[in-house]
Amino acid sequence: MATNMQMVFLGTSAAAPTPERGLSSIAIMRDGELLLFDAGEGMQRNFIKAGLGMNRKMKVFITHMHADHCVGLLGLLQTMSLQGRERRLDVYGQPRLKEFLLENMRIINFGLTFEVAIHAIEGEGIVVQESDYKVTCCEAEHSIPALSYRLDEFDRPGAFNVELVKKMGIPEGELYSRLQHGQDIEYNGKIVRSADVVGPPRPGRKIGISGDTRPTDKLTKFFSGCDVLVFESTYTHDKLAKALETAHSTATEAATVARQAGAKKLFLTHFSARYDETSALVKEASAIHANVEAAEDLKQVDIPYPPS
Amino acid sequence: MATNMQMVFLGTSAAAPTPERGLSSIAIMRDGELLLFDAGEGMQRNFIKAGLGMNRKMKVFITHMHADHCVGLLGLLQTMSLQGRERRLDVYGQPRLKEFLLENMRIINFGLTFEVAIHAIEGEGIVVQESDYKVTCCEAEHSIPALSYRLDEFDRPGAFNVELVKKMGIPEGELYSRLQHGQDIEYNGKIVRSADVVGPPRPGRKIGISGDTRPTDKLTKFFSGCDVLVFESTYTHDKLAKALETAHSTATEAATVARQAGAKKLFLTHFSARYDETSALVKEASAIHANVEAAEDLKQVDIPYPPS
Repeated sequence: MATNMQMVFLGTSAAAPTPERGLSSIAIMRDGELLLFDAGEGMQRNFIKAGLGMNRKMKVFITHMHADHCVGLLGLLQTMSLQGRERRLDVYGQPRLKEFLLENMRIINFGLTFEVAIHAIEGEGIVVQESDYKVTCCEAEHSIPALSYRLDEFDRPGAFNVELVKKMGIPEGELYSRLQHGQDIEYNGKIVRSADVVGPPRPGRKIGISGDTRPTDKLTKFFSGCDVLVFESTYTHDKLAKALETAHSTATEAATVARQAGAKKLFLTHFSARYDETSALVKEASAIHANVEAAEDLKQVDIPYPPS
Repeated sequence: MATNMQMVFLGTSAAAPTPERGLSSIAIMRDGELLLFDAGEGMQRNFIKAGLGMNRKMKVFITHMHADHCVGLLGLLQTMSLQGRERRLDVYGQPRLKEFLLENMRIINFGLTFEVAIHAIEGEGIVVQESDYKVTCCEAEHSIPALSYRLDEFDRPGAFNVELVKKMGIPEGELYSRLQHGQDIEYNGKIVRSADVVGPPRPGRKIGISGDTRPTDKLTKFFSGCDVLVFESTYTHDKLAKALETAHSTATEAATVARQAGAKKLFLTHFSARYDETSALVKEASAIHANVEAAEDLKQVDIPYPPS
């Protein structure tokens, strides 16, 4: 079944907020569920502005334990409680995230109205596996331990040629279902092959989220074939020394990862406060990758299925 | 010596932010020093917008340990460190604030570049005493332990009538100083009385900050004679039941405290997100107190000396 997917940038500034940009947070709405990647301080304000809803089915993934990526969780828990959230909230991150949340839940009176399930990620690989998608993680290379994430929808079954099947006189029901699920059937003494009435599997969407990191070969492999890659681009390439010193990436480096990974679309984000506007970063990355766009606070992006 | 004093509201929303209002924080700039009352999540963004400066001499006073009043300290510490602050930062609040800061400084990598001196307040009375002002606190009445604060500038010496003293032929220097400091002197065989050449002491400014609270007789006494009182006004009085339930105040109650305390000017703040705009709260309070104004994010207010 096709589902809508929409990405909303809730914060696009590196380290410190600016008047125009809040701290790191990316929301992906998918089939009624909200997947949040990072929760920088103050992100709840853009969360509210974007109308995302405090009581929604939701998972939060934190890339690393710098304040500008995780502190916003505290206010989010507070506001969700004020609004009487009852659904469990699932939060994923490094073991230190668990300590951060448990200690603050002990010290600050949130009056939590719902369960917070904190999942400490050890190592790499699958973080979440649902019936129709999975989220995996990979070690990034930052000044402290950090993770990158990737969301993969599973392929959907190919299109079922109902007209053709009707023409064959096959009755709806059990036999339809078997054909749709790849089984060949016998009807009226004839073999009907699933492959003849069902198209090839339709690929799901693949989204990569870098968090804070230097570009690495490992991440280039991890993000291989992404439809959309959101990669941090703290500096223009003339500030490479600064990027090396602070373990961040330049726009050129982000674009190089995206190109080598075969990512179809690259969003740059996590901009140093020194950039009032982002055209220089986009220009630089566009020399390397053909489809580059700068993230902006509250920018909403529909993510279509890739062509079959 | 006369000094400028300016108050800037950095956040005026209760509990949860709205698109227009951030979480509680009030900055008072006085003689180059910044006194910050509460630091709700995201306040650093308005702090930056107001151009207050991350490297300034500064003291922070926290009223209570709800997330919307203290979580912003984490981002503030982070951004101050990014900007290489070297000055010590003095933070005052309940013992739990100390625990909150120490635990988060342990868990999150702030890369602190400066000393954070955390002063745990036990009981009531003087919190800070400097040469020309003091800050005191009083227990408020909220759903968790909470404090109200008051800033009192000490009276300045009266105006020195230089012309008159010159006419008497008294030479500048030691004798001037003695007269200015209230001592009578003998000059040319005559007694010159300080009171004859120095006017009456000129009163300093007195500012009250309620934090979150119900109105109480104790607070009315504590805020007695304030030039400016900033009192929480979460609800209009038709929501009194809600105010009682959540241990907040209505605009009517805030104005009643201000009037009974003899406060000259009342700022309402800490508005429930249900109020898109604040005219109903101001109208209600204005029926009781003659000088009421609603706080707004980034509103700057010059606070003049009271008339002598």
